[in-house]
Amino acid sequence: MIPFPEAYIVNLGNELLRGFVSNTNASYLAKRLTLLGFNVVGMMTVGDAYEALSKVLENLRAKKGLCIVAGGPGSAFDDITRKVASRTFGRPLTINERVLEELKRLYGGKVGVDRAALERQALFPLGAEPIPNPLGMAWGFSMREDGGLYLFLPGTPKELEAMFEAHVEPLLREAFQLPELSIRSLRVFGLPEIEVEEIVRSLTRGKDLRWGIRVDFPEVVIDVSLKDDLCKGFLEGLRMELHPFLFSEGERIEEVVGRKMRERRVTIFLAESCTGGLIGHRITSVPGSSEYFKGGVVAYHNEVKERLLGVPYHILHLYGAVSKEVAAKMAEGARRCGKTDIGLSVTGIAGPGGGSKEKPVGTVYVGLSDGRETIVKGLRLSGSREEIKTLSCRWALEILRRYLEGIDTG
Amino acid sequence: MIPFPEAYIVNLGNELLRGFVSNTNASYLAKRLTLLGFNVVGMMTVGDAYEALSKVLENLRAKKGLCIVAGGPGSAFDDITRKVASRTFGRPLTINERVLEELKRLYGGKVGVDRAALERQALFPLGAEPIPNPLGMAWGFSMREDGGLYLFLPGTPKELEAMFEAHVEPLLREAFQLPELSIRSLRVFGLPEIEVEEIVRSLTRGKDLRWGIRVDFPEVVIDVSLKDDLCKGFLEGLRMELHPFLFSEGERIEEVVGRKMRERRVTIFLAESCTGGLIGHRITSVPGSSEYFKGGVVAYHNEVKERLLGVPYHILHLYGAVSKEVAAKMAEGARRCGKTDIGLSVTGIAGPGGGSKEKPVGTVYVGLSDGRETIVKGLRLSGSREEIKTLSCRWALEILRRYLEGIDTG
Repeated sequence: MIPFPEAYIVNLGNELLRGFVSNTNASYLAKRLTLLGFNVVGMMTVGDAYEALSKVLENLRAKKGLCIVAGGPGSAFDDITRKVASRTFGRPLTINERVLEELKRLYGGKVGVDRAALERQALFPLGAEPIPNPLGMAWGFSMREDGGLYLFLPGTPKELEAMFEAHVEPLLREAFQLPELSIRSLRVFGLPEIEVEEIVRSLTRGKDLRWGIRVDFPEVVIDVSLKDDLCKGFLEGLRMELHPFLFSEGERIEEVVGRKMRERRVTIFLAESCTGGLIGHRITSVPGSSEYFKGGVVAYHNEVKERLLGVPYHILHLYGAVSKEVAAKMAEGARRCGKTDIGLSVTGIAGPGGGSKEKPVGTVYVGLSDGRETIVKGLRLSGSREEIKTLSCRWALEILRRYLEGIDTG
Repeated sequence: MIPFPEAYIVNLGNELLRGFVSNTNASYLAKRLTLLGFNVVGMMTVGDAYEALSKVLENLRAKKGLCIVAGGPGSAFDDITRKVASRTFGRPLTINERVLEELKRLYGGKVGVDRAALERQALFPLGAEPIPNPLGMAWGFSMREDGGLYLFLPGTPKELEAMFEAHVEPLLREAFQLPELSIRSLRVFGLPEIEVEEIVRSLTRGKDLRWGIRVDFPEVVIDVSLKDDLCKGFLEGLRMELHPFLFSEGERIEEVVGRKMRERRVTIFLAESCTGGLIGHRITSVPGSSEYFKGGVVAYHNEVKERLLGVPYHILHLYGAVSKEVAAKMAEGARRCGKTDIGLSVTGIAGPGGGSKEKPVGTVYVGLSDGRETIVKGLRLSGSREEIKTLSCRWALEILRRYLEGIDTG
């Protein structure tokens, strides 16, 4: 078995030390390196100052393995990084003519870009290998020193990520003996994190897998990186053990239900109350959703439930707006109103006010009507207003998914 | 002037090194410390291992100032931290009887909590001062050593934050000479970050202020921490220079427009097309929004625009769904449909498909009708589908805010 090489991540940026932005570069790099087969053993953040970076690099010189130095989001890849790299490794800064030509070609005509600016960007420690930036002028560079590989990258997250995918990943695969790994993010809804973790743990016991569990509220995500030959059996095991809670091997829930609706050529119209429009927002975040999504009514007031969705007054009055009966009428009304195949409704109490002893905050009903039958599911959710809205929306999409997949909604 | 004391933040957690969770504790602590008057000079993340933390603490021993050691989100505040602190400073672990009694009182009866577990939680290095945890069993502790103050806190973000506010902040104010600072987050929409930065820079020149600019897309946020006597003049300057773009000194935009609608006792109904329900979602994220929000129609298909909002067929046909004329009719239709004081509409092309030469992706119209007049604003936005939806929604709320505040919508 190939041992996992060690990696260190260093981030530069006063704004990171002030905490006004969070260090997304650090977690991006850590995750990518882990999934590639590295063992990240330390991460450091220091200010945009020569001295600070210089000390950190001195400390890391003894280590073999990989060291990535990146700016923080928003911080410019300024001269400090080049200067520190140049001094630390005793390599004078030199203009790289090939990079200068390329930058001239790409940015030469732009307003505010003079020759001096381009030359500054083409300056690298002697012998350093430039790393192209597909999105901007700030190229990075790599250096092999003392048995270690040092990479210097700019801090704008989009640029860093584009560079990583296009150039850094191939470079690392070449420089280190890395296992051939597949990377998957599996999504689970409806089971607590701890149960998912136990199941994954039992399936991975004794196997050469790297995995992590995280909560992307209200879902649980299993990130796995595994060798191709192991992949099949493991995924089959997971699918079986986590049925029907495992809903995706990469897609978001709105993509899953969107794909199913497109495949089945059905259309949908919504009737949202406590979610306030969130379900429609999620469904329309998928490009091309107009193929199956016709629209919806946000019926916050009872008057709107009555007038636009045709929920009978006496039902609203008798059972209350948050009830099984009203959820059913809303779903049927949505279907009629949008002239669609499916009507999907949510009514509930998101809080913090509005609860009662019989119907506490978090009481939510989801309805789905297809003209033949109307399903209603009652829920007792807990959390903040925002969390209850998010959960209600997620449950509505779950009922829709299970309906489309022919799974019992329980 | 009191110098800003130096601070270091150390986070523990294998899951942080794997990048599967982002280090929210680090940015939370960095921001709070900065605003309190500390100068955060370094942040480090290491794994949950005795050796790793031990080395970091040894390196920090020489420093004066503050060092906070915290677990990462999700990682338990386990025995490693206590053991390392005990060994590093040569203080044997001892049960703190007072803490043990308190833990017994609070958790003694709970399932799965035995005497051994409670005793482990009450174990601290001799002479350490326990820091209560209002939300859990994992208390922290502080130690004064070699002229520095060392704090050890658990990693669950909610617990860490509760402890910081209730106990750590007062402790720091007592231990360090800190300036009396006020903390504000001012929100700006419609100006690029760089312009906001220039204005703040010119207003703060030579003043004893700490500030940071960050983008909370699509808004720019100015975080300032300033002495009370400086506060008034500086804020007045900002309000003047940033008018009408500065819309809040803490509230989110949906809270601002909600408060104004409540004050003016007006009600609203929405007609959303490309935003898909996002505006309704944002408005209803504010508790009590049912006082002014009656609902909306998500009119994704033209058929829905016609049937529910009464947009005339010939206008849809003549000008197209994404047009000034349709936005106006949608706003008027929304107002009629909801029987409200205000109708607010959005129609646009979120992309990536659906654009044309005359109406490229990002063409968006916002309409507002109050029965006396109908305002329409045309926008040319750019970005991903998600960004265009977010921007369209934010612009709709901006038009509403300016209308409510009597500012010209431009």
